[in-house]
Amino acid sequence: MKKEKKYNLRVRLWVEETNGIFLGLGRVILLENIGKTGSITNAAKEMKMSYRQAWQFVEDMNKHANVPLVEKMLGGKNGGGARLTEAGERAVKSYYTLESKIRKFADKETAKIKF
Amino acid sequence: MKKEKKYNLRVRLWVEETNGIFLGLGRVILLENIGKTGSITNAAKEMKMSYRQAWQFVEDMNKHANVPLVEKMLGGKNGGGARLTEAGERAVKSYYTLESKIRKFADKETAKIKF
Repeated sequence: MKKEKKYNLRVRLWVEETNGIFLGLGRVILLENIGKTGSITNAAKEMKMSYRQAWQFVEDMNKHANVPLVEKMLGGKNGGGARLTEAGERAVKSYYTLESKIRKFADKETAKIKF
Repeated sequence: MKKEKKYNLRVRLWVEETNGIFLGLGRVILLENIGKTGSITNAAKEMKMSYRQAWQFVEDMNKHANVPLVEKMLGGKNGGGARLTEAGERAVKSYYTLESKIRKFADKETAKIKF
């Protein structure tokens, strides 16, 4: 008798504001790296993202947020640092909470289905 | 006072078997088009997919399914037709059911979150 195949559901999430993407997994990891390294330059290096792309993502997230997620500090060597605001910390947590809830729900529903 | 921004969660789903992707939105639409047009060639045209890509997807879905989703009929003009098996019909329905349940759940959870 043939063995029944096993299926897994994969889920990808992103949060959109009216005028474009606000948060996705890449942006959330960028935020975490900014929190960890204290700079956009180092955060980008950490994930092999170009500085230009990282800067663009930060601008974009700040624009789409109710309150900026990243605070840039000017001056100092390395061209100044950056840090997450409270809203930034919260956005990271909210994204992962949402992701984990949806993943759990999705797994439960997938288990009920016979493909 | 600044107006609070509105956020929507976007979700993309795909089903994997142990050795690769089984079903995603593009493949499900391809299945529907095969059901509608009775041929892989016409189904591919309908969605501006190359015949080669469509054929590949069909082979791949059949390989990862417990029972083939598409039955190819040889001969006749236009190089024979194709039709969905019962398992193929079921796969389309199951994918959309799963998607709609997860979307509803995701919207509900997103509404609870303050970004």
